[in-house]
Amino acid sequence: MANSKFEYVKNFEQPDKLLPNTWIVVRIDGRGFTKFSTKYTFSKPNDIRALDLMNAAAKAVVTELPEITIAYGVSDEYSFVFHKTCSLFERRSSKIVSTIVSTFTAYYIHYWSTYFPDTPLSPPLPSFDGRAVCYPSVQNLRDYMSWRQADCHINNLYNTTFWALIQQGGIDALEAEKMLKGTLAADKNEILWSKFNINYNNEPAIYKKGSVVFRDYELVQPGTHNTAAEVDQQAEQVQQSKNQAEKDKKSRAKAQVVIEHLDIIKDEFWDQRPWLLSNKPGKGKALKQT
Amino acid sequence: MANSKFEYVKNFEQPDKLLPNTWIVVRIDGRGFTKFSTKYTFSKPNDIRALDLMNAAAKAVVTELPEITIAYGVSDEYSFVFHKTCSLFERRSSKIVSTIVSTFTAYYIHYWSTYFPDTPLSPPLPSFDGRAVCYPSVQNLRDYMSWRQADCHINNLYNTTFWALIQQGGIDALEAEKMLKGTLAADKNEILWSKFNINYNNEPAIYKKGSVVFRDYELVQPGTHNTAAEVDQQAEQVQQSKNQAEKDKKSRAKAQVVIEHLDIIKDEFWDQRPWLLSNKPGKGKALKQT
Amino acid sequence: MANSKFEYVKNFEQPDKLLPNTWIVVRIDGRGFTKFSTKYTFSKPNDIRALDLMNAAAKAVVTELPEITIAYGVSDEYSFVFHKTCSLFERRSSKIVSTIVSTFTAYYIHYWSTYFPDTPLSPPLPSFDGRAVCYPSVQNLRDYMSWRQADCHINNLYNTTFWALIQQGGIDALEAEKMLKGTLAADKNEILWSKFNINYNNEPAIYKKGSVVFRDYELVQPGTHNTAAEVDQQAEQVQQSKNQAEKDKKSRAKAQVVIEHLDIIKDEFWDQRPWLLSNKPGKGKALKQT
Amino acid sequence: MANSKFEYVKNFEQPDKLLPNTWIVVRIDGRGFTKFSTKYTFSKPNDIRALDLMNAAAKAVVTELPEITIAYGVSDEYSFVFHKTCSLFERRSSKIVSTIVSTFTAYYIHYWSTYFPDTPLSPPLPSFDGRAVCYPSVQNLRDYMSWRQADCHINNLYNTTFWALIQQGGIDALEAEKMLKGTLAADKNEILWSKFNINYNNEPAIYKKGSVVFRDYELVQPGTHNTAAEVDQQAEQVQQSKNQAEKDKKSRAKAQVVIEHLDIIKDEFWDQRPWLLSNKPGKGKALKQT
Repeated sequence: MANSKFEYVKNFEQPDKLLPNTWIVVRIDGRGFTKFSTKYTFSKPNDIRALDLMNAAAKAVVTELPEITIAYGVSDEYSFVFHKTCSLFERRSSKIVSTIVSTFTAYYIHYWSTYFPDTPLSPPLPSFDGRAVCYPSVQNLRDYMSWRQADCHINNLYNTTFWALIQQGGIDALEAEKMLKGTLAADKNEILWSKFNINYNNEPAIYKKGSVVFRDYELVQPGTHNTAAEVDQQAEQVQQSKNQAEKDKKSRAKAQVVIEHLDIIKDEFWDQRPWLLSNKPGKGKALKQT
Repeated sequence: MANSKFEYVKNFEQPDKLLPNTWIVVRIDGRGFTKFSTKYTFSKPNDIRALDLMNAAAKAVVTELPEITIAYGVSDEYSFVFHKTCSLFERRSSKIVSTIVSTFTAYYIHYWSTYFPDTPLSPPLPSFDGRAVCYPSVQNLRDYMSWRQADCHINNLYNTTFWALIQQGGIDALEAEKMLKGTLAADKNEILWSKFNINYNNEPAIYKKGSVVFRDYELVQPGTHNTAAEVDQQAEQVQQSKNQAEKDKKSRAKAQVVIEHLDIIKDEFWDQRPWLLSNKPGKGKALKQT
Repeated sequence: MANSKFEYVKNFEQPDKLLPNTWIVVRIDGRGFTKFSTKYTFSKPNDIRALDLMNAAAKAVVTELPEITIAYGVSDEYSFVFHKTCSLFERRSSKIVSTIVSTFTAYYIHYWSTYFPDTPLSPPLPSFDGRAVCYPSVQNLRDYMSWRQADCHINNLYNTTFWALIQQGGIDALEAEKMLKGTLAADKNEILWSKFNINYNNEPAIYKKGSVVFRDYELVQPGTHNTAAEVDQQAEQVQQSKNQAEKDKKSRAKAQVVIEHLDIIKDEFWDQRPWLLSNKPGKGKALKQT
Repeated sequence: MANSKFEYVKNFEQPDKLLPNTWIVVRIDGRGFTKFSTKYTFSKPNDIRALDLMNAAAKAVVTELPEITIAYGVSDEYSFVFHKTCSLFERRSSKIVSTIVSTFTAYYIHYWSTYFPDTPLSPPLPSFDGRAVCYPSVQNLRDYMSWRQADCHINNLYNTTFWALIQQGGIDALEAEKMLKGTLAADKNEILWSKFNINYNNEPAIYKKGSVVFRDYELVQPGTHNTAAEVDQQAEQVQQSKNQAEKDKKSRAKAQVVIEHLDIIKDEFWDQRPWLLSNKPGKGKALKQT
């Protein structure tokens, strides 16, 4: 039974390498999570167990794949960023996307019982889809991240007000929707404050800002140099000495992967953490912490 | 905080619709399963628990996604076939691949404890990658399936002999490799028989043939008509009446998804099950069985 | 001045091979031909010199590229069809499209003075753009060809009536447009006949049917066998003996490339010329003609 | 004859938009120019008529398509660069490539008799193929341009020596090839000087440097600002006021398109002409010249 006469079918595989020297963002989304969150009676507007589970899965993904420089999550979605010099899987799109989606799913299912100890999973199981997008410049990448965090803010303010109206205001979903139609952020803040004595600013940062996952090093004084400009002008994968590459790898392995809820739209976040854009490990914080 | 100034980043998403009127095959592969199988001490050359787990996950995928007409698995890989008229997710490659990979992974993790009750999973967790390939003609599709099953046969005969030499023959891996270098199928059969009294033909079909997963209906008498030719000449998605589509959907939902270990290289398998190529549900077998 | 430090830029080239075992159609279109036809005072609704020039250029393209099995042209557009087994330029899309467009343009400019002896070309020169599309089945390909010819008919009937109203009816373009809005084919036929005594059926075939360019062999009796089904079921490039390939090449070189104005929507055209779908040269007509 | 039943074939067209915010380079190459140059007895190693014809065609392309910021040509190839903010034809690859190739071919054929007045063209006519490549950063783009110019230098030094050996040294091609095998640039310079009294540095710049085509404005003092960094950090198409866009368009139309033979590897060329990277028209030189 010779295999050779069938092997021509391999020629139908189409290459899908992502353009070199561009930032790769893989965004994954929960499939049918509206239905899923009802099945497992997630709290509204936010379920802290569900968010913590998403974050735990994302942290595992970032830990297993050191090529990821930063990840940002909100609700049932997560974006994973690969540095523009990354050559993981020869930058094959399907391979990168499927690996992220599969690893994330594995941990989501595995950790479920930790965060939902009283409600075991049953089929149909939760799953995620994903896609990869390339961004040529640092500004494009930061605008992508800002887009997701701005979206988080807009949705969370809406949902917080919407569910306050229902849960505390006693009106139904249709009425709440009608009442919020056309309102600005200020209006929603006002409704929250005047009707329910809620100061939106005091809401938990994880709800307002979403979650950022990254390797942590010592913060640097902003303004000392322009990482973005340097990185944008970088033309290709920097050829490092073997020694340096080995050192970087160890630094990364030692670095703690953290989950924070910070503003990633303003410059400060990026200026203080130049390693996120430069891909050069910072000074070890881990050692100091011990 | 207006979102609009960031939304331009959506324009960087590149469309990835797969060519219409072609068969879509999504193949997934275990990532680093050599190491993984060592960690969980899988039996060699085949671990029935691991294969049963793969099959259970694949069956769940086929059950959840009725657009899949057939799936074929061997070792740590599985191929899922979508009919050429399928319009799931508008045929977007990333969406299709990531959904399959994620759903499969979810069930693999979820069912793990059923098949490996004594060895709980621990990080790093098993995961899978995947890719989609389009095949224009029925012959291309069948040659793809034949390629995988021929590969299964070749590898299994090799592995069976290799491990017999080690486990029963008491030689080490290097010697076994050397002994098998350049041997033909007949030689390996001979080694198995003469040295270990193993008749390869009597090995379990699941090892020799791999596993086929599909919706089961009543077999038809082969030769009554040429499904392949009809399907090849089909130009686009057949416009069905709403009634017919509804009926088909019900038939599919009622049909039992089965796991078999049959020869899918020869015509017989396909001739007896015209629904696999035609995408028209067959006669209900389920009812008869009750 | 070593070149090697710059050569990494080659890695940014993305492969663009068209899916194997599918028909490749390259359609080219005149750029800004409305303006161009005004500059050179083309006759309306059809300029026979301009059409003959298009056909001469297309015939040269088909003659130079024996991998083209058939071409169809109407107005300022031309579609070139490569057989599904074609491996020209490893099926690279850019290479195929640019070669067709460039060769066509070269002959269009070169032959201009033959068809427009009194009006020399001056910048800006006429040019064409193009794209490639893959069609998996014979039916898809034939439907594509039918689409273009049906379009030719619809446009020509409209334009014939529109210009008759203006040139013979003495009304202006706006009035003519208004009068034709919402009319059916029968209405336009009626206008032509009752107002201008024109029987549309007697219009020249080149205007009504467009132009088909192909290698001509002896017609065969239709119904003797089903070429479409055979070709659809073909899985890959047929491995020919060297002898056969050489013979085929000679047959093709000897065959006359003809320009006809036939109905390519009905089966007859294709049934009588099985070589167009099978890619096997027919019986030499050329010899008989001498 | 309704067209609607065929129109589904349009769905087989695959989008091919090039990634936004990246530099687009379209390189075209003469097809079979070795044979072609023999047919028309081009001088070796360089034929000034053939190069002038290439340059004239390229200049016409740049003039007709103001979206091109710079073009570089050597031998029978030409590279055309579109600014990274360019949105011509919605950045569709096929459309961009085919338009460039067709326009270039049209002028090549049209101007042939100007540069080769005594040798009229005859079929098979010269033609060109082309492809588009995206470059994310200014450095990538400049490295691409440097790659082509370094290639020009390497080839021209080789060819100059090779043909001197044959034409003046009286040896045959095989011997010349053998003699040059493994030689460095210095060796070739030495051969030229010692054997043929040729100082390579005195060879015409068009042979040594190739040809650069661009819109010319007043040179600026280098070092006043960092255009590359600014452009790299640009995130998307700058939204200009209508007034500004109109002004820019007029500036561009007025600007003279020039053909130069300068070093484009060193910074000076780019520093003195910031408009090439910034896409903002410089100060009008044309006015001063009158």
